[in-house]
Amino acid sequence: MFIDERSYNYNMKRTRRNEHIRERLLDAGLDFFSKQGYNGTGIKEIVDAVGVPKGSFYNYFSSKEDFAANIIRHYAEGYWREWSTYFLEGPDDDSLSALRYSFERMIEKHKESDVKAGCIVGNLGAEISESSEICRNAMQTVLKEWRERFAKYVLIAQAQGTVRNDISAEELADIFCSVWEGSLLRMKIENSTDPLKRCINLMFDKFF
Amino acid sequence: MFIDERSYNYNMKRTRRNEHIRERLLDAGLDFFSKQGYNGTGIKEIVDAVGVPKGSFYNYFSSKEDFAANIIRHYAEGYWREWSTYFLEGPDDDSLSALRYSFERMIEKHKESDVKAGCIVGNLGAEISESSEICRNAMQTVLKEWRERFAKYVLIAQAQGTVRNDISAEELADIFCSVWEGSLLRMKIENSTDPLKRCINLMFDKFF
Repeated sequence: MFIDERSYNYNMKRTRRNEHIRERLLDAGLDFFSKQGYNGTGIKEIVDAVGVPKGSFYNYFSSKEDFAANIIRHYAEGYWREWSTYFLEGPDDDSLSALRYSFERMIEKHKESDVKAGCIVGNLGAEISESSEICRNAMQTVLKEWRERFAKYVLIAQAQGTVRNDISAEELADIFCSVWEGSLLRMKIENSTDPLKRCINLMFDKFF
Repeated sequence: MFIDERSYNYNMKRTRRNEHIRERLLDAGLDFFSKQGYNGTGIKEIVDAVGVPKGSFYNYFSSKEDFAANIIRHYAEGYWREWSTYFLEGPDDDSLSALRYSFERMIEKHKESDVKAGCIVGNLGAEISESSEICRNAMQTVLKEWRERFAKYVLIAQAQGTVRNDISAEELADIFCSVWEGSLLRMKIENSTDPLKRCINLMFDKFF
């Protein structure tokens, strides 16, 4: 196939530019939704922050609801990338210690942040589970993926003999998911990372 | 002191009527906030639902924020009344079983309800902790009171020998508060009471 190099370059540039705008809209949306909630945020605020006309928003997203569902997936990918980096900094041969280390690093990050944004999945879960089935499904999928990934590391720790074997890795991951989300919520309400620290200490010292 | 009986009766009636309207506004607000969130609800919807003019709202509450803080306290009182009734239905001489029974009854109530409203303290905590210091303080106080009350029953269970003694009642109440709030959040996201059931089973069978 003959490729017109100028047109190819132009299209590549345009694709990259579009991806860049889409990414910036998602980042701005995540930021606004974290601070003001879904219903407290207008599309206009987001496009103004990014500096694009309101009409172009609809080139990327079919509705505010579709936008929020994409933010949930975007956030989950970023969260997992960050968490994995921390996990890899932990000891290679001790899965439980690496898990603990990665959550301790996450807590430090929350502590350093001025805004106690918490977890966007938990926040939107509380606000719009009842009103948006599209977003509820996206949140349910993301939480399931996190639990499955977490359970794999717990399973390794069980094989290494550092985690109890009378409860399955899936059940341990499941309860940890609830207590971590609940602790993030309490971090917001108490404006302190202490509930997160107590959660990690009690779960890793006394439960796992 | 001389009391004018007619004026006394008139004032008593008016006070009762005012309390009645205040209560109905709080109930309607709780309902709307649970379904649509704080920012998704307008004062007009609430006064229309109760059937009072918008102006009279401000006889009872100085602002929407003040209204929300009062709803949080109103909800907490109602929740505690309901929970205590269930607790008293449980066995007198076994505090742990009575605690478990009361939470199992709460789960049934959530199951029967069409709307997975969850906990208004958790929901508003996720939505407006960053934007309203007044509401954040009200939520923090309410969660503290719940934990203290719960810890008293755990302490009795520890004295009865049914709960482990290597973790203090306060710490057990603290982690339970996080995991219960997290499970309520997951009930909303998963549109199922299963996360609540797994929380109660794992906490009462394997942790306490």
